[in-house]
Order: sequence, then C-alpha cells, then structure tokens
Amino acid sequence: MAGGSGERFWPQSRKKKPKHLLPIVGRQPMLTQTIARVLPLVPAENILVITTQSQLAAARVTCRSLPKANIIIEPVGRDTAAAVGLSMLLVKQRNPDAAFAVLPADHVIGDVSGFRATLDAAFKAAESADELVTLGIEPTEPATGFGYIERGAVWHTEPIAIMRAKRFVEKPSLAKAKGYLATKRYYWNAGMFVWRVPVVEAGLKAHAPELADGLAKLEKALGRGNAAKALAKIYPELPRISIDYALMEKSKNVLVVPANFGWDDVGSWTAIARHHEKDTAGNILRGMACVENGRNNIVVSDNGHLTAVLGLDNLVVVHTADATLVCPKDQAQEIKALLKRLQADAKTQKYL
Amino acid sequence: MAGGSGERFWPQSRKKKPKHLLPIVGRQPMLTQTIARVLPLVPAENILVITTQSQLAAARVTCRSLPKANIIIEPVGRDTAAAVGLSMLLVKQRNPDAAFAVLPADHVIGDVSGFRATLDAAFKAAESADELVTLGIEPTEPATGFGYIERGAVWHTEPIAIMRAKRFVEKPSLAKAKGYLATKRYYWNAGMFVWRVPVVEAGLKAHAPELADGLAKLEKALGRGNAAKALAKIYPELPRISIDYALMEKSKNVLVVPANFGWDDVGSWTAIARHHEKDTAGNILRGMACVENGRNNIVVSDNGHLTAVLGLDNLVVVHTADATLVCPKDQAQEIKALLKRLQADAKTQKYL
Repeated sequence: MAGGSGERFWPQSRKKKPKHLLPIVGRQPMLTQTIARVLPLVPAENILVITTQSQLAAARVTCRSLPKANIIIEPVGRDTAAAVGLSMLLVKQRNPDAAFAVLPADHVIGDVSGFRATLDAAFKAAESADELVTLGIEPTEPATGFGYIERGAVWHTEPIAIMRAKRFVEKPSLAKAKGYLATKRYYWNAGMFVWRVPVVEAGLKAHAPELADGLAKLEKALGRGNAAKALAKIYPELPRISIDYALMEKSKNVLVVPANFGWDDVGSWTAIARHHEKDTAGNILRGMACVENGRNNIVVSDNGHLTAVLGLDNLVVVHTADATLVCPKDQAQEIKALLKRLQADAKTQKYL
Repeated sequence: MAGGSGERFWPQSRKKKPKHLLPIVGRQPMLTQTIARVLPLVPAENILVITTQSQLAAARVTCRSLPKANIIIEPVGRDTAAAVGLSMLLVKQRNPDAAFAVLPADHVIGDVSGFRATLDAAFKAAESADELVTLGIEPTEPATGFGYIERGAVWHTEPIAIMRAKRFVEKPSLAKAKGYLATKRYYWNAGMFVWRVPVVEAGLKAHAPELADGLAKLEKALGRGNAAKALAKIYPELPRISIDYALMEKSKNVLVVPANFGWDDVGSWTAIARHHEKDTAGNILRGMACVENGRNNIVVSDNGHLTAVLGLDNLVVVHTADATLVCPKDQAQEIKALLKRLQADAKTQKYL
C-alpha cells in the first residue's frame, strides 16, 4: 500500500512524492526498502504496489525491480478497506486460494531478518487455517498515536507463539496506553496483515456487505478486460472505511503474531530523531546543516544548500529545492494547517 | 565609502556583496540609491566610490552611471580615517582647494530632497570657512548603537541653522542616551562629512601625524603614475583608525548641520522592520514568504522559493539561492559568531 497525501514530511514529501517515495530513514525510498525486505519471501512478479495516478511516475522509478503491470493505480483514495479489497481481487485473479500479505510501504523496520521470520510465520499460519493474521508490534512505550490489539489465548506455540486476537482498540489516551503496556497483553496495530483470499472475502461479506458488493461488481468488470476503466467506474463508489473498522474489529477469527523487529511508522519529522545520530548539542543535521548556539533541532538541508540555525532550540527546519519549512518540533503535526493555507492561495498551490 | 564585510545581512550579503550592493531597503542597491541622491548636486565625474578588490565586479555593475576610473580599490581595509585620507588625495589631484563630501554607501534616507538641501548647506558652509562640517541627525529615540555629537553655539542661522560641535561621544548606555535626548543638544553621528581638502589635510597633520605622514608618502607615489601599485605598497601601512577618533573628536573647528531627513543606517535584519509593511500579525514578508500561526517575524525568500514559518514568533528567516538563516530577532547581531563557525570549516567557507 503506497498511497498517502505527502503532508507530514512536507516540504520533502509532496502530493506527487509522499513519504514512501523518499529516503526519510535510510538511503533508499521507504517503498524500495519495503520491497527489498519481502523479496526473499515473495518473488517480484507476486509483489503488487497500489499507488495513485499522481505518484505513478515516481513509483515506477522506485519500483524498477517489479514488472510494470504490478503497479496498480487507485483512481481515488478510498481508505484501507477498499485497497485491501482491490488487492484481494488482483491476487484472486492469479490464484483464488493464495495467501497474501498487506504491508504499508512507508514503515521503518530495524531488524530485517526478524521481520522476515515473523512474516514467514504469519504466512504459514494464514496458509494453514481460516484466520485473519495480523502482526502485533510489542510496544516499547505507551504510544498514543497507534491502535492496539489485545491478545487472547495462545493459538499455537511452534515455530513461534501465535495468539488469538481478543479485540482491536483505537488510539488510546496516555493513561490507557500505560495500562495496556503494564498488562503485557497488548500490541501495536501496525496495519500489516496476512491472509488467504477466501478468508478475507468471507470476512468482508459478513462484516462489510456494502464493500463486498462493490468488490463483486469490480471483480466482474475487471474480468471483462480494461482494468483502468473498471477501476475508474466502480472504485470511487466503494465505501470509504478502514480495514480495521470494516473487518478486523468485527471478526472473531483473528490471530496476532507478536513482532519485535524495531518497527516505527515514523509519522512526522520529529519521529526521525529516533533514527539519526545527534551532535553533542542534541541536533540532528542532515546535508549542509549548521546550528550555532542551539539544541535539539532537526535541520535537513539537501542539494548543497546551507541551512544555518542560530540561537534556537527544538526546531524542525527542512530545506528543499523550492520550499523551506521552519517550525517548532511540537508543532510538526500542525503542518496540515500550513498546507491548507498554501492550498488556499493560487500562488502557493504549486508547492504542495 | 563602499566597503564593508558583508556580515550583518548574511546570507543576502556576502564578502563579495555587502549591504551597499544589495537592495536591502528599496528596489535598487543602497550604493545606487546613494549615487542617485547626490547626482543633482555632484556631477558623475566627481563622484568617487572607494571599495575593495573582492567587491569590484559587483560595484562596477552597480555604478554604471560613473566613469570606470572613479571606482577606487582599497587594497586592504584600514578603517575610515585612511579611506578619508585617500579620498582627500584623489580630490586634491583634481582641485587642491575643492570641498568634498564623505558619505557611507549603505544608509537609508527617506526624504531625499531634505537630504540634498542639508548637504547643499553643508557644502556652502565648508566652502566659506575653514571648518570640518558634519551632518548631525536629530535623534528620534535613545539609540545606543550610534555615536552622538553635542552641539555648541549657533554658528550661522541662514539659510539654515548650523551649530558648532562641542564634542563627539561614543555609543552611550541607554541611560546616557535618554539624557542626551532630553537635552535636545545631541545629534546622531551618521559618519557624513563635508570639508575642503586643505582643512582636512591640516586637521590630520595636527591630530593624526602618523596618518598624515603616510598620506604624504602615498601622495608622492600616486604622483608618479601607477595608482594601484602605489596603493598596494603604502596603503596597508597606514594606521588603522576611525575618522572620528583620528580627527573629529580632537578638532575644535567642527560644525554640525542638523539633519532630519529620515535617516537610518539599517544595521541588521531587524532594522529593516522600520522600512517595510507588516501583515496583520506584524510579519514582514518579502518574496514567497508565508507565516502560519506566527507573529512579528521577518521572512525574506527570493527567487520564487517558498519559505514557510509555522507556529513561531519574532524570527528572522532569510532564504537565498545557496544559504538560509534562521535566528531570533534578538540574536540577529550574533550573526558574526555563526559566520566565524562557517569560516572555521572548509566545507562552509564558500557560503561567506
């Protein structure tokens, strides 16, 4: 799943080039890293990338290792349930009983072989039972920015322990998150799933009938040939709903594979701090960045442009070829308000 | 006098392009504005510009209205007394009794015809008497960044009142500056002088004999032809001293012409605030600059580059093609510390 609006890492990310097409952490775009992580488990011809029309050009460059036809264009964003439904149909065309993984394209994973082992276990579980399998990240702090999965009984212990999922909970308050952490029964919901086509299909039919109906129509239209035309006609009518809400929260046949592979969704500029070295004053400096008399800043300055911060602390300063952002770290999540303002002015729309 | 180190308006100003070569206030470089101001009083062939080798190329472009030979290169900076001495010698070659004005090239003057009237009065005084004539700016606030001139008796009342100067005082404390303002007997020393060659020459001989000796040597060498060679040999040996200290503070024959023509030396980024319109939140925005949820910022962004400030107040943010500065207004005078750091690193020297 490689869509996204390109807001949170503006001005590096843009509508046409969101986070997964950028090397936010590491040297390669996040999508390239995501593909490289699964390639030893899944051959290139079986890796599908779902993206948007506006990001297609950049995605093609980023996905050179995949067949061109494997880059699928969502005509409009309809949230994750529709994207999962579409991928299910595309996998079904190839093999109606196949197990497949749904993975976000913009996450950081520190321990790649740990990830592969976990994903492999999830595939084995999904292939052996009529279960929706999800990866549950063992939480390292009481994060309030993620949903949580409460585990139930142990389902299987070999080769690694897999649990039943008892319930999905939305982003909690800090107090609740602390409680979850203390019980050691909760995992972060990272939006990574493995399941067989018939299991997803049955689940959507049972719990999201409107979406299932739309997908059935889409399947027929896809069967008639012109995929782009079929998508353009039917996809925009699919209900806009998340896969958590449409399927996971309502299903009883959900397993959770505990995961501990240094996962981070890196949701904003401030989150990159965990993945970069700091100078002695706590500044993260990327590119030609310089801080004089300042602490704990994040300064990103590409293309040989010098960005100098003098006498300021706790800022995010990001310079790109045509736009620069200056904001306090604790306002990095307010970028949307800024972008709304840029959107409202004809002179500044081109910077989005 | 068009030298300067290019530090205070970094990154717009550079060693090779200091403030007087930039349109810091107004649409034209400050030097161009300075020349335009005096052109109705002084023909182009009598306007000399003293600059440095590294600024020569930019100065030539800026001074297209002057004969090429009128752009004089100081081989090294030796403070204002040496520059005044050099200009005196150059004027003397043309007319040994001429009156001439010494004017900084980087000041803002709001009321140009008021300036011309004052300068004209100063010329008339200098031509009619053996006096060192200085322009004294009527202070509008207890500024601590300027030297002051205390006036003495009235020297002349027609066409405008001209006073004897009683004493020159260096940059005062705030308390002293407030006292000066209350007496209504003090003017800001703007470093603008008008005098005849023999009066300056006699003054330097009396009060700065070492400089006068050096200038006598330089005069002889210049008389032998190759000016550049003469300057390169003798100029670096002249004492490094300001004209205030060398001559004005020690002379008794000093007049002050009260001036009230909207003068500002615009000594730093924060000083430009007085000369630009603010938005409703008190921000000064030049070029493609945008502030969301922030007050009283100065944001300068040239060349179509968007500079967006989010959730911050009282900053100076200046973007240029190859370097960007972010600092609080109250640290704008600390730019020197930053530039020292850039100077110390081979990778960043090119941005100076």
